[in-house]
Amino acid sequence: MLEELKKRVYEANILLPKYQLVTFTWGNVSEIDRESGLFAIKPSGVDYDRLTPDDMVIVDLDGNKVEGKYNPSSDTPTHVELYKAFKELGGIVHTHSSYATSWAQAGRSIPCYGTTHADYIYGEVPCVRCLNKEEIDGAYEKNTGLLIVDDFRANKRDVSAVPAVLCKNHGVFTWGKDGHEAVHNAVVVEEVAKMAFRTELINPQVAPAPQELQDKHYFRKHGANAYYGQIGI
Amino acid sequence: MLEELKKRVYEANILLPKYQLVTFTWGNVSEIDRESGLFAIKPSGVDYDRLTPDDMVIVDLDGNKVEGKYNPSSDTPTHVELYKAFKELGGIVHTHSSYATSWAQAGRSIPCYGTTHADYIYGEVPCVRCLNKEEIDGAYEKNTGLLIVDDFRANKRDVSAVPAVLCKNHGVFTWGKDGHEAVHNAVVVEEVAKMAFRTELINPQVAPAPQELQDKHYFRKHGANAYYGQIGI
Amino acid sequence: MLEELKKRVYEANILLPKYQLVTFTWGNVSEIDRESGLFAIKPSGVDYDRLTPDDMVIVDLDGNKVEGKYNPSSDTPTHVELYKAFKELGGIVHTHSSYATSWAQAGRSIPCYGTTHADYIYGEVPCVRCLNKEEIDGAYEKNTGLLIVDDFRANKRDVSAVPAVLCKNHGVFTWGKDGHEAVHNAVVVEEVAKMAFRTELINPQVAPAPQELQDKHYFRKHGANAYYGQIGI
Amino acid sequence: MLEELKKRVYEANILLPKYQLVTFTWGNVSEIDRESGLFAIKPSGVDYDRLTPDDMVIVDLDGNKVEGKYNPSSDTPTHVELYKAFKELGGIVHTHSSYATSWAQAGRSIPCYGTTHADYIYGEVPCVRCLNKEEIDGAYEKNTGLLIVDDFRANKRDVSAVPAVLCKNHGVFTWGKDGHEAVHNAVVVEEVAKMAFRTELINPQVAPAPQELQDKHYFRKHGANAYYGQIGI
Repeated sequence: MLEELKKRVYEANILLPKYQLVTFTWGNVSEIDRESGLFAIKPSGVDYDRLTPDDMVIVDLDGNKVEGKYNPSSDTPTHVELYKAFKELGGIVHTHSSYATSWAQAGRSIPCYGTTHADYIYGEVPCVRCLNKEEIDGAYEKNTGLLIVDDFRANKRDVSAVPAVLCKNHGVFTWGKDGHEAVHNAVVVEEVAKMAFRTELINPQVAPAPQELQDKHYFRKHGANAYYGQIGI
Repeated sequence: MLEELKKRVYEANILLPKYQLVTFTWGNVSEIDRESGLFAIKPSGVDYDRLTPDDMVIVDLDGNKVEGKYNPSSDTPTHVELYKAFKELGGIVHTHSSYATSWAQAGRSIPCYGTTHADYIYGEVPCVRCLNKEEIDGAYEKNTGLLIVDDFRANKRDVSAVPAVLCKNHGVFTWGKDGHEAVHNAVVVEEVAKMAFRTELINPQVAPAPQELQDKHYFRKHGANAYYGQIGI
Repeated sequence: MLEELKKRVYEANILLPKYQLVTFTWGNVSEIDRESGLFAIKPSGVDYDRLTPDDMVIVDLDGNKVEGKYNPSSDTPTHVELYKAFKELGGIVHTHSSYATSWAQAGRSIPCYGTTHADYIYGEVPCVRCLNKEEIDGAYEKNTGLLIVDDFRANKRDVSAVPAVLCKNHGVFTWGKDGHEAVHNAVVVEEVAKMAFRTELINPQVAPAPQELQDKHYFRKHGANAYYGQIGI
Repeated sequence: MLEELKKRVYEANILLPKYQLVTFTWGNVSEIDRESGLFAIKPSGVDYDRLTPDDMVIVDLDGNKVEGKYNPSSDTPTHVELYKAFKELGGIVHTHSSYATSWAQAGRSIPCYGTTHADYIYGEVPCVRCLNKEEIDGAYEKNTGLLIVDDFRANKRDVSAVPAVLCKNHGVFTWGKDGHEAVHNAVVVEEVAKMAFRTELINPQVAPAPQELQDKHYFRKHGANAYYGQIGI
């Protein structure tokens, strides 16, 4: 069942090593079929170069494995919480991509320093706090998801406009309308993280891009008045 | 019409991913046919790996599309202003290449620290200010072009000797006698930006290269007394 | 004799250039057959691209060459001391991989800044002191091994939980249950060294990841309660 | 004539892009035939991907072209001075390789921070001063060579033990017993420059490696008591 979904999720997973976002098995992509409430996700700890579409694991929104010969990614409970809280999400990516993870390890949100960032992400890429001991010792991966949800709600962040989050001392999650868009955003965040790192070393007093420039670039590509690309064809 | 031009512009565009100057669709090359006053430019938001010569869009110097099935790059009005102001320009490149854009995000011109820079660019690579709210909310891309033109005129910069500019919080434009030379200069600026970044980290008190060295290297390759390469063959 | 071992060690050595951990001949892998007390190791100074399984050298735990047409790696006496002191080791890697060696040259242990590190290495990657003049002028490579052994014993480090060490002003050694796992750990250390370098530049006041997070991630993958991957299949 | 020499110099030149030491035409290799006093060198400004052995230019030690359809590299007079002053040199390389050139632009010698450096280069990689106006306006490339020669003589540097030099605000020259060894040393200098850059950022108070370690590693590979590699086979 859901053969098309498994194929798409497989293909999105294979993009992670192609874009050099993962070392070994340090990442995963999922995509949800909202009608059935089931999602496909990479199996845990399986090498990308021997992965097949058939290895994808089907999971329901209670986190139960529904189909698949492998265990799903250990990050599955995080995906579950994000899909449950945000109906807009169609696909989710988790990686330890090098620059984004360096920001996460540093415990800092990535400021919006330019239009490359503003074209895709409205405002900073937020970095949520590290889980506390109780949260870690409990349902760790689920609590990671709950923390992200809480942060986005408390700060009134729109998941469609902010398609990425850093988890302090850990790594990065991105999302989109499907698995491929989530991977696309993972590439963007890594590139933006790389340039922000260099930007601050070139000018330690640098300030974020003016709000009007951020607005201009974001809304040039998103929303009713977008005019970038081939809209209307 | 202008089949040769479209082919050349296509080939110049394809060099951007080859030289790792672009991620996804974040860049474009144009080249002008001065006789007809028309230029060819990459279509907006089309992936490099499915681009064909036939996809190039022909635009006139009023910014009107003359031929092509796609919309031209959203940066087209910037190209128009540069071609109109500077008759020497035959080709223009825009990218968000990583090091050059980091300098642009930092809001700093790239000082000339050595002969690699001086061989191609006379003096610093200037960084023009960010547009103000009025300029952004108005004809944004056209105003980007006008700002560059104003800066070069106000500072008496020669576009032949300074074939590149950084736009604060945005990215980089380079140019040349045709699209290929503009791409060549885009590679140079990225390399120069990378080395200047490292140079300042190795020696925070570093000063630009002496003027006489800058003169020597620039005029070794340019002008009546040039002797680099195979001139005269 | 030990043809299987030589083949495996050859294959593990070939992974070093594949993972870009070595320039020229700056690295080596060995793997031990505990039953016979013999190990296979790369010959000294032979290029990776002309290496064959047959070129591997068989050495005993007194450091004597038992079989092979070439001299063993000049680092062989270091491997000997590590194998003798730590029965858990099945394979050892030495490289001058770029980021890890930069930490070694800086004389600093790599702090655990996140889960990428904690998934594989429990606590910091220790940097042992430089040998003194007497140790250098004597049996240099053997003394390097003895110093590592002393450091691990004095600081009660568990070689299974800390599969890597930096040697000040020199490079990095990693190990594992066999040569392939040792190479895997060499990749991890290089990636962790790279991200720690960037982490400190992004936030000079950064602290190591909380102990409870380090515990969680390490024990999620190691020991009786591990649940990462396909355990039980 | 000298067909063998031209072929070897061609092959050594082709290694520069392979090892990513050059962008476009920013580098050259020469090798001398001491018997005839003639050397072969890359032509000026010719792309590496259309270079053939036949394009190499033969030059004598007065700097005169003896054979070849192209002009020799514009750096030829520098090669001439080095060959004339140091009879030990059989091959010379000039590049603008990215990290080494960043040190040159910063005007700093590269300290010896570890054994990777000490294995090949005895002591720092010296950075000679920028030429003064008179020297630049005169025989610039010849004066570059004379300055290097003066520096090595004044500081009693042994060209066999220090096979590289940085030219302030410019780039790097390396040498060896032939063109291939000179290229090998160019790779080493770039790697050493890269690690020294990172070493200082990881530990701004770092000191050079102890002299006894530098001695040990250098003399492990060079001189009468060398024991690295397959000496004696």
